[in-house]
Amino acid sequence: MTTRAIDRARAAAVDMLRTARVAVRPDEIAAMEVTDLGLGDFKTVGIQVLVYENNDRYCAKELILLPRQTCPEHRHPPISARNAGKQETFRCRWGEIYLYVDGEPAPKPKARIPAKYASLLTARHEIVLKPGDQFTLPPNSLHWFQAGDKGAVVSEFSSTSTDENDVFTDPRIRRVQG
Amino acid sequence: MTTRAIDRARAAAVDMLRTARVAVRPDEIAAMEVTDLGLGDFKTVGIQVLVYENNDRYCAKELILLPRQTCPEHRHPPISARNAGKQETFRCRWGEIYLYVDGEPAPKPKARIPAKYASLLTARHEIVLKPGDQFTLPPNSLHWFQAGDKGAVVSEFSSTSTDENDVFTDPRIRRVQG
Repeated sequence: MTTRAIDRARAAAVDMLRTARVAVRPDEIAAMEVTDLGLGDFKTVGIQVLVYENNDRYCAKELILLPRQTCPEHRHPPISARNAGKQETFRCRWGEIYLYVDGEPAPKPKARIPAKYASLLTARHEIVLKPGDQFTLPPNSLHWFQAGDKGAVVSEFSSTSTDENDVFTDPRIRRVQG
Repeated sequence: MTTRAIDRARAAAVDMLRTARVAVRPDEIAAMEVTDLGLGDFKTVGIQVLVYENNDRYCAKELILLPRQTCPEHRHPPISARNAGKQETFRCRWGEIYLYVDGEPAPKPKARIPAKYASLLTARHEIVLKPGDQFTLPPNSLHWFQAGDKGAVVSEFSSTSTDENDVFTDPRIRRVQG
């Protein structure tokens, strides 16, 4: 992404946090991760992430998705004999989020699935999260999510985050740490 | 606490969450822990807790403190050879919180320390948390905190929570699970 595109995305995310009344500090805004996950199609596939805390025991982040932006399908695989992979809880704080996991497919999904990504978004069981709703994903479960028309602010509570271990369905994606 | 006192405290906490724009569900409100920690002095010593998630790897809660309410001094001791005790991060979402840990005492603490509890609030190093500010406590460190004049909403991110293991400085306190 160009510096200008990153700056614009960051400004849009900050606007959304302000609307959602989520207090963040200037140093957190400066450190916000803005990524298109290497696909060069930021408005459709991308995410903004504020890492509040990530230590060897737990992690907490705020995820900000612009309107209809999609975090592409991935899973958090086992990383050691004692670590079955990252377990995570998504709690919708503002806006709306459509989360997809393995299971009975939604007959009419609320997400807009672009044809060019359809084969890379294989999980089709739908979980709709509105403000106050949350869902906990077991380790190693495939998932992807898309924000609704207004975008979304989602708190992620989890075990330790090691993004470099994430496995994406789309082989072109390499997770870049911000 | 009487049922009526609990209902009033819960209603005040819900009002504060609404002012802070923190979305919570009706079933979460019904399950909210409201406790005076057994001291029968709720306006001075007590806390309201929403447990969003507590599993064998991590925990996330929203703590609500009424104006000038104090969570009394305690620590989270080691509970096994592999668990050094609960580690936790407090992030102020709304209002103001005065957190006290071991270290250089504040010459003029912002908390109001009632004379009858002064000997039971031994940690006097002050950390002021305003919205967006956070602090991570190492396991087994003594701490207590008081909300400012408006009260406070604080997100707690932590390792697994096992309240029954908490050690309070005041020997009269027995932590009761809500």
